[in-house]
Amino acid sequence: MDKQIGVGLLGMGVVGGAVARVISEKSNHITNLTNASVEILGVLVRDRRKKRSFDMPCNKYVSSVDDILDNDDIDIVVELMGGEHPALECILGALNRGKHVVTANKEVISKHGPRIFDVAREKNVRVLFEASVAGGTPIISPLMRDLTANDVVSIKAIINGTTNYILSNMATHKREFSDVLEEAQVLGYAESDPYNDIEGLDAAYKLSILSTLAFRTPVIDSDVYREGISRLVPEDFQYADELGYSIKLLGIATRDEGKVQARVHPVLVPADDSLAKVSGVLNAIEVETDLCEKVVFQGPGAGPMPTSSAVIADIVNISRSVKEESSFPDPVRLEDEVIIQPISDLVSRYYIRLEVGDLPGVLAQIASILGEKAISISTVVQKRADGRNGTAELVIMTHLSKEQDVQLAIKEIECLESLASIGNVIRVSN
Amino acid sequence: MDKQIGVGLLGMGVVGGAVARVISEKSNHITNLTNASVEILGVLVRDRRKKRSFDMPCNKYVSSVDDILDNDDIDIVVELMGGEHPALECILGALNRGKHVVTANKEVISKHGPRIFDVAREKNVRVLFEASVAGGTPIISPLMRDLTANDVVSIKAIINGTTNYILSNMATHKREFSDVLEEAQVLGYAESDPYNDIEGLDAAYKLSILSTLAFRTPVIDSDVYREGISRLVPEDFQYADELGYSIKLLGIATRDEGKVQARVHPVLVPADDSLAKVSGVLNAIEVETDLCEKVVFQGPGAGPMPTSSAVIADIVNISRSVKEESSFPDPVRLEDEVIIQPISDLVSRYYIRLEVGDLPGVLAQIASILGEKAISISTVVQKRADGRNGTAELVIMTHLSKEQDVQLAIKEIECLESLASIGNVIRVSN
Repeated sequence: MDKQIGVGLLGMGVVGGAVARVISEKSNHITNLTNASVEILGVLVRDRRKKRSFDMPCNKYVSSVDDILDNDDIDIVVELMGGEHPALECILGALNRGKHVVTANKEVISKHGPRIFDVAREKNVRVLFEASVAGGTPIISPLMRDLTANDVVSIKAIINGTTNYILSNMATHKREFSDVLEEAQVLGYAESDPYNDIEGLDAAYKLSILSTLAFRTPVIDSDVYREGISRLVPEDFQYADELGYSIKLLGIATRDEGKVQARVHPVLVPADDSLAKVSGVLNAIEVETDLCEKVVFQGPGAGPMPTSSAVIADIVNISRSVKEESSFPDPVRLEDEVIIQPISDLVSRYYIRLEVGDLPGVLAQIASILGEKAISISTVVQKRADGRNGTAELVIMTHLSKEQDVQLAIKEIECLESLASIGNVIRVSN
Repeated sequence: MDKQIGVGLLGMGVVGGAVARVISEKSNHITNLTNASVEILGVLVRDRRKKRSFDMPCNKYVSSVDDILDNDDIDIVVELMGGEHPALECILGALNRGKHVVTANKEVISKHGPRIFDVAREKNVRVLFEASVAGGTPIISPLMRDLTANDVVSIKAIINGTTNYILSNMATHKREFSDVLEEAQVLGYAESDPYNDIEGLDAAYKLSILSTLAFRTPVIDSDVYREGISRLVPEDFQYADELGYSIKLLGIATRDEGKVQARVHPVLVPADDSLAKVSGVLNAIEVETDLCEKVVFQGPGAGPMPTSSAVIADIVNISRSVKEESSFPDPVRLEDEVIIQPISDLVSRYYIRLEVGDLPGVLAQIASILGEKAISISTVVQKRADGRNGTAELVIMTHLSKEQDVQLAIKEIECLESLASIGNVIRVSN
């Protein structure tokens, strides 16, 4: 062993604590892997005296990021603060000072990845971010390295454990969204402010990162069409089940020639599809390519220990290179810019649930609107008649239709006097 | 672009042809990835004039391996001959001449991996073998790189597509082994000599490679306990199904302190286990670790295009390093030697199917033998009485028991006059 690799940690929450603990407990192993001694030389924290799950010697804690960025003995800055600012500035600051960066920050990589990769290339340092998607489940490195000879056709992914837990629970126990969400918060599977998870922002960040790497073109968070799960009701799960489907919040990205489409929304997934069987907080990413058909990566999408596994793998990989004192092969090379296809261009099948007046002729009116828009009906079932309100529930499954036409049809149906409400419109996986 | 990477192919069968085709068709992309021009400079074939799916210019074909090994312009030798000899000699010859090696050869890596890794280290060249296990599904690189911070606790894997196809088919259609095998041969899913697949040798090669990397200790093919699938009959699938199980040929490797156990045999897998749902020729590897719980890699386990994906990823990775002219981080570092635990030490649950005389007192005799060996019965069902032969079928599920005790009990049961035959004894996944 002839070298020390200095690591600076930005943030010492549950993930930072786990990273510090594993580096300490597995130091012999990490030395074997890197031929170097990997040492945490500084930890940026807001409060030095806060009680933590893993304690570093007090003299390692610093309260200014410059104490990390200006420390010449620190080779790798590990950013675990989360959020867009000041994480972005810290990452750029580290790269600009010639330090390598490891980050778990999906928001920053999603929004600013291409710029960050450019700075890293310019400074001949590396930025790795395996932990930013799917926690401990390897997907960034397999996409960039193991599937490098492939042209990726599509990605279909369950990349938000919170919503998958909620949907699994709603499906199994036929419970209301708000009840399950509350329980998930108590169990620690959902945050006290669950907005980013349940409205699909978290999944959109991750999908944009995967799309950028898979399609080798910049896809940022705002390129991703997004719908959350809060409109789903137990009846949707029941009817989906009867029709042979599960409901999942999927991130789906496709590339067709120069066009990329990326979207996060609830999807009816055939019950025998491997993604339908991924339950609870698990993540799973299905990558379809020209050479490999479909490859699936499944595992824990969050949690301090799995996330530390990904962060330390990145640290080890950089340490090996630092040790070699070679220049760094450019890890993220974005080849071309593509057109982002709007959701209105989507062609999909649709599940449409409508609450209608229980009157003769209603179905004819609806079928006529759909027909005019060239939306062909596959099945229609009257699910429930409520004598008191004089309403009934219609569940319509369409054949492949254009999203734009479906949205126009829904607008027209909304104007029908016989309509009580649009229950839900959910896209169906092909 | 300032460098050419010379590649020599040993073997030009379906995989070699696919590798040559993809390198040719994706040359721009590969150049982008490697900053070098990757060129096939020589191809070892037995018959230059044979018609192939992809044709190289005639002057690239050579008939002596020395024309590849002695060609100073060749940096990477890609061994796709298969089989132990002369593939081993070719690989060692290439390494000894300072050439990097990419191989898809599970048999050679399983039997001679540690020696090959030693030579590569000595010569400061790399040997990569992603295609040797699970074809296009990334598993070698994720184990060595992405899960590098983890201690692997166990591997459970479906790593032979031929047997998984046969078992899936027997289960779905309640068909006889020999019928399904014959069909698989016609469809090209089984070889004309299916011995290596159906008797578990192929899976044992692959499991030994995975075990070596996961446990960082040499595990060779003969360390793997092995049973094939030819004794399974449709009734086993029917009864397993009734009990809530699928039957899969699994490779299972576990590490407990200094002891490793590796085994390939049919297993009753709970129907809701993710491996139970892997059907047809797919492969799936579940890796359980200290940090990540369970991570699953699933995809195509064979086929020329998926295999070429893995081979070319290895070529690209080496090419990047060659380009850098750095020394090579030691990819396979085996840390310690462990004790290989014999199958007799296994503790498992068991499915035991017996054909017995349909006489009073038979069950009492069998239960008494099992009881004496401390084998506790979970359920016992009389499945079928055959009035003509005066026999009945008993299916016994045990609680956790010692393999050694179960084998002794089976030997005693075999001696019972009331026994017509031992139908099958199958281990049950926990």
